[in-house]
Amino acid sequence: MNTYSDICRAAHYKLTGHGDRTFAMLLDGFAGVDPGTAADIYGVGQAINGFEAEMAGLLGKPAAIFFPSGTMAQQIGLRIWCDEVGTKRVAYHPLCHLEIHEEGSAKYLHQLEPVLLGDSARLITTDDLAVVEDPIAALLIELPQREIGGQLPSWDALVELVDAAHTRGMRVHLDSARLFESLPYYGKSAGEVAALFDSVYISFYKGLGGVAGAVLAGPADFMASAKVWKRRHGGDLISLYPYITPAKHCYDQRAGKMGHYWEWAKKVASQMNQIPGVRTVPQVPVCNMFHAFFDAPAGAVEAIMGRIATELDIAMVGAIREVDEGHARAEFTFGDAIDAIPKELVEAALEQLAAGLSDR
Amino acid sequence: MNTYSDICRAAHYKLTGHGDRTFAMLLDGFAGVDPGTAADIYGVGQAINGFEAEMAGLLGKPAAIFFPSGTMAQQIGLRIWCDEVGTKRVAYHPLCHLEIHEEGSAKYLHQLEPVLLGDSARLITTDDLAVVEDPIAALLIELPQREIGGQLPSWDALVELVDAAHTRGMRVHLDSARLFESLPYYGKSAGEVAALFDSVYISFYKGLGGVAGAVLAGPADFMASAKVWKRRHGGDLISLYPYITPAKHCYDQRAGKMGHYWEWAKKVASQMNQIPGVRTVPQVPVCNMFHAFFDAPAGAVEAIMGRIATELDIAMVGAIREVDEGHARAEFTFGDAIDAIPKELVEAALEQLAAGLSDR
Repeated sequence: MNTYSDICRAAHYKLTGHGDRTFAMLLDGFAGVDPGTAADIYGVGQAINGFEAEMAGLLGKPAAIFFPSGTMAQQIGLRIWCDEVGTKRVAYHPLCHLEIHEEGSAKYLHQLEPVLLGDSARLITTDDLAVVEDPIAALLIELPQREIGGQLPSWDALVELVDAAHTRGMRVHLDSARLFESLPYYGKSAGEVAALFDSVYISFYKGLGGVAGAVLAGPADFMASAKVWKRRHGGDLISLYPYITPAKHCYDQRAGKMGHYWEWAKKVASQMNQIPGVRTVPQVPVCNMFHAFFDAPAGAVEAIMGRIATELDIAMVGAIREVDEGHARAEFTFGDAIDAIPKELVEAALEQLAAGLSDR
Repeated sequence: MNTYSDICRAAHYKLTGHGDRTFAMLLDGFAGVDPGTAADIYGVGQAINGFEAEMAGLLGKPAAIFFPSGTMAQQIGLRIWCDEVGTKRVAYHPLCHLEIHEEGSAKYLHQLEPVLLGDSARLITTDDLAVVEDPIAALLIELPQREIGGQLPSWDALVELVDAAHTRGMRVHLDSARLFESLPYYGKSAGEVAALFDSVYISFYKGLGGVAGAVLAGPADFMASAKVWKRRHGGDLISLYPYITPAKHCYDQRAGKMGHYWEWAKKVASQMNQIPGVRTVPQVPVCNMFHAFFDAPAGAVEAIMGRIATELDIAMVGAIREVDEGHARAEFTFGDAIDAIPKELVEAALEQLAAGLSDR
């Protein structure tokens, strides 16, 4: 029996993402690269240090280090701030990656004590921070806040929040797995956004579409400590070029396309919000992603989208999750795949979605 | 100015290793592989689970997990045994990788309390273990013991040591970064060696010549915990196939060649031991590696080997380290590179080494 994900994989067109995750992602990154290029060796060599320097420059920080994963990079960043400030307490959103996707990493490996700010359904505000007791070593701010549909605070609200934390002696860390996705909304450069923060993490396999990997950037002494912790975590691999070369390739190829992807997110969200029983969060996307909520069980939405994949050859979205009985949710993230689809097919898919939900 | 390592890199022939570490190592591993092959996603998919099953079968363990690094895999393994036994005390050789190459990983991340056994210049014995107080959660045995020239205990001594630990309720973990290198000496299969141990780690970028990566294998519940800790460490990357595919390629290509490499190690060591002022440890290698000690400063040995690299176009060994004033040490590990060298050139290099040391 074909599962929903099998059916989606088989569809020629994909509404969301950059296409299926296959070995081609790696091999495309190495196309035209000299096979004789020297590998990086335990963090040393042009293959790693060149890209780290480029990212440090882009983010306007004294140093940057390439990590195998953001999970590793971020808990290390927070740990270093904790050691510097002298408390294990860190503050972040209740749906922060460290809280819900890492098996308690920061608690088990670094004994950090997370303080969850505000309400899981909305962005952190300065008021949320105001009611938390000192000391807090570091505030982590995620831009965009992925688990609530990729929401972003206004620039003024962001500056106010960071200032409030700094005033109280906190370090402020930017979890910007999707930094480039945020820039069109702010109309700012990566460096202008990063300048608000003491340390910054960016990922290369979300909107940029790389194979894996992350960069942590910050002050020189902070990054010197990060290098030591990277080794302790088992992340100072003899060679990381298999992730770095595709990361650079994808960064060069896609960092400038986030505004284009965002336009598609707004267009599709607008049309989906006109379908009875469907709403998006946020209503008007502020980056290339949104969450769609359906007044229908996940199985029913899968059945409708499965038919669209089979009949129109267009997979709309990979995973459809049950919110509660009779309600489902799906994360739409726009990337290269949308450009390969004839526009009338996008319209046809949305029409068939509306018809399918209406016929239930 | 050209450094010694620049000069070695420029030499056409290499006496030791598998050749320079370049991007070709990755690309060779992917030659002929279908670019449309599905990537592994967070530890799931044939691209990872197929190789894990193959390694579990080879090692005769219920389960195996591919890790980005041995540094990550081993501290996790020891941590799990500690949690199971209920003590933080683990025992290993004073020159264990965890003790000298990992920035105190196990201590800082897992609060393990290492008990160093015996003398750093020789292998661990049953007598060394006998004088250590209980409780010890796990004994780590490294085969071969890399930092003392790749020495191996006799099979009987190994069995006695493992039995002694088991009798006292310890778990016994095998650090076999170089497992395949050890097999010709024992005349045993990987599974026969692994069968002595409760958990096993193997590496893919030492003698096998892969890009990076490791496998940890053991009982099912132990490996289920290892998967959770892998995520906490930041090692559960969205895709590990960039390391797995070359690992499998190199395993298929080189696991059976260790006896051949060993023959070369014995041959070259025998000739080097005839040079006044040179001795190898062990005197007769038991695997494809040995350490050479020179009654000469590191700079003098570099100068002589640099001339050999320039004049004969053959780099003998990468790093020459100072032991103390007037004495140097180098690690010789034999691999594919030796087969590319005309035999008379190997003789000529050893003769020039002897002449160079004699002329000082």
